[in-house]
Amino acid sequence: MKIYLAGPDVFLPDAVEMGRRKAAICAAHGLAGLYPLDNTVDLAATDASRQIFCANEAMMDEAEAIIANLTPFRGAGADPGTVYELGYMAGRRKFCLAYSNDPTVYAGRLGRLAEVTPDNGRLVDAQGLTVEDFGLVDNLMMIHALELHGCPLVTPVKQPVDVWHDLAAFETCVRMAAARLIAT
Amino acid sequence: MKIYLAGPDVFLPDAVEMGRRKAAICAAHGLAGLYPLDNTVDLAATDASRQIFCANEAMMDEAEAIIANLTPFRGAGADPGTVYELGYMAGRRKFCLAYSNDPTVYAGRLGRLAEVTPDNGRLVDAQGLTVEDFGLVDNLMMIHALELHGCPLVTPVKQPVDVWHDLAAFETCVRMAAARLIAT
Repeated sequence: MKIYLAGPDVFLPDAVEMGRRKAAICAAHGLAGLYPLDNTVDLAATDASRQIFCANEAMMDEAEAIIANLTPFRGAGADPGTVYELGYMAGRRKFCLAYSNDPTVYAGRLGRLAEVTPDNGRLVDAQGLTVEDFGLVDNLMMIHALELHGCPLVTPVKQPVDVWHDLAAFETCVRMAAARLIAT
Repeated sequence: MKIYLAGPDVFLPDAVEMGRRKAAICAAHGLAGLYPLDNTVDLAATDASRQIFCANEAMMDEAEAIIANLTPFRGAGADPGTVYELGYMAGRRKFCLAYSNDPTVYAGRLGRLAEVTPDNGRLVDAQGLTVEDFGLVDNLMMIHALELHGCPLVTPVKQPVDVWHDLAAFETCVRMAAARLIAT
């Protein structure tokens, strides 16, 4: 049973090692983790980014499930590249799981990074754009996609000290995936 | 021919009016634009966010194409909710189009918002995470998905004064969608 491992982990200084750790956790639960950096891409090629895309898409098509790391990335929300992959897998009707190592609600988190003010019964940012305020950890499309196409978002009770390397919430996703994919 | 109109436009103060303008442009080209706010949702309901998700997903399933507004949203990248929808439609094998009213390259844009420094041949942010630097306008997953599942990202030559209300790049997408969907 193959699971695609999506996340901004690929941008970490120890990205390759993170992939190894995640794959080892999958293996301990009887699953095969597919990690984008396992693909061989010629980064010096003029079409390197396209090669990466095609390799990632082929990996997703091969997998039966996705575990996406939705920990906030360069702002209040998840990494768009990872979110694209979650959407793609939901569209392919694969089993969708995700975690975020920041358990706080989106509106509150944004309020700590930028100006958020009440305006006529809604919250708005400095540009006057509505701030989603449904008490969810991130945009409702991802949160409810997980509920309806897999398992609800996994978050720790308390944010770990190292949000990029703590894999407890990831392992919970792996356990849920194993229970679902190996049982059926 | 129905096209799903995705974007953070739904967060604008004049969100409903933006939907009307976009739908009118679609109609002028023989297409039916489906806009999330056309759905009837009881915002006072305890499951309002889930109702919104289900209505949006049903709309996407009904549409043959998507035009996503990937204009940078609260940071250097596109709105994750919109990107989820683009991924979902690519996964459903629908025809994918998108525009961004900011034509600049991602790494440069991020560098104007936050610290970006060279480190051993790559660019890194203040957290030490790699900054994608392929000369693309946003994350490679969205950019190449558009090339391979529809039409390349549309950007204006020069950023319009009002990035949230200028619909020239949107109309280019509509024209391309009409050429493709009505011809076949």
